[in-house]
Amino acid sequence: MRYKKGNFISHANRGMSLEYDLNITNNYYLDNNIACIHKKPTPIQVVRVNYTSKKKAIINEAFFKTPSTTDYNGIYNGKYIDFEAKETNLEYFPLSNILEHQIKHLETIYNMGGISFIIVRFCKHDNITFLLETKYILSFINNNSRKSIPYLYFLENGYEITFKNNLFLDYIEVINKFEKEKL
Amino acid sequence: MRYKKGNFISHANRGMSLEYDLNITNNYYLDNNIACIHKKPTPIQVVRVNYTSKKKAIINEAFFKTPSTTDYNGIYNGKYIDFEAKETNLEYFPLSNILEHQIKHLETIYNMGGISFIIVRFCKHDNITFLLETKYILSFINNNSRKSIPYLYFLENGYEITFKNNLFLDYIEVINKFEKEKL
Repeated sequence: MRYKKGNFISHANRGMSLEYDLNITNNYYLDNNIACIHKKPTPIQVVRVNYTSKKKAIINEAFFKTPSTTDYNGIYNGKYIDFEAKETNLEYFPLSNILEHQIKHLETIYNMGGISFIIVRFCKHDNITFLLETKYILSFINNNSRKSIPYLYFLENGYEITFKNNLFLDYIEVINKFEKEKL
Repeated sequence: MRYKKGNFISHANRGMSLEYDLNITNNYYLDNNIACIHKKPTPIQVVRVNYTSKKKAIINEAFFKTPSTTDYNGIYNGKYIDFEAKETNLEYFPLSNILEHQIKHLETIYNMGGISFIIVRFCKHDNITFLLETKYILSFINNNSRKSIPYLYFLENGYEITFKNNLFLDYIEVINKFEKEKL
């Protein structure tokens, strides 16, 4: 159960991490035929594999690779959805948390008519979680020299994603809002 | 250069594998702003990691996991694209080559208004490569007891994907064809 703590609604009882919450959310969307959105596996370069049996292979040496795209993608309402999700303990979101080619990827998707954005959770702000559309990320980068997006920018240009049934982080509701505004 | 060999156009000089060809194709689509389609990383369960330095981590123990979705997805013409690609050395395509939940995934995408299909290459048929839409996979499964789709079924219900400029496997051309037929 959520409870009031000072002026905030505490989110302490929510999932342990943004990834965990998004996982539950995506499962909920899939189970209810709302959307089909998955997290991509972490890219790993396998160097050495030990085949103990035909079906079982143990990887003995491997390295993490740099992801070529973002973490999440899928389909909602016939449309292509693509986003990256990050948490920050700071009062701002450092752009270094997203690789340059990931921003380029979000831009490509945006230009191709897909729906792309970032989801950022501010842990120190009671875990408030925002969705910021790619056009606002690009606009910030093009009009600012600073290398981090302040919390205030999210408040002004992003949408807060709220928990539904104290269970899932309903970012589709936000997509519906800004898709409606486009019409 | 392609050359005639008997009654066939030899494809011997094409890429070493379907995955290789699709990789070149997807790069071509991206470079030319036609589509943004990527292969998902192979899912791996990491068990033990040795952090030799902050930036360099060596994975000492890991396992291959079962993929939860298909290998390829992305955006074309604002639409969500999703497919699995397989090669076969047989006169038919064994359905066991695709996991049951992957077929379920293709069906989900189809029902949600996305474009989903399989790409199958018949190595013994001069590497001829077909695109078969999900509705035909489902129709085959629902109307047949056999566990493999014969070559003839692909000839009758699939589309051959042809190489362009002897370089890339132009499956977008095929998508354009069947999307046009829907109108």
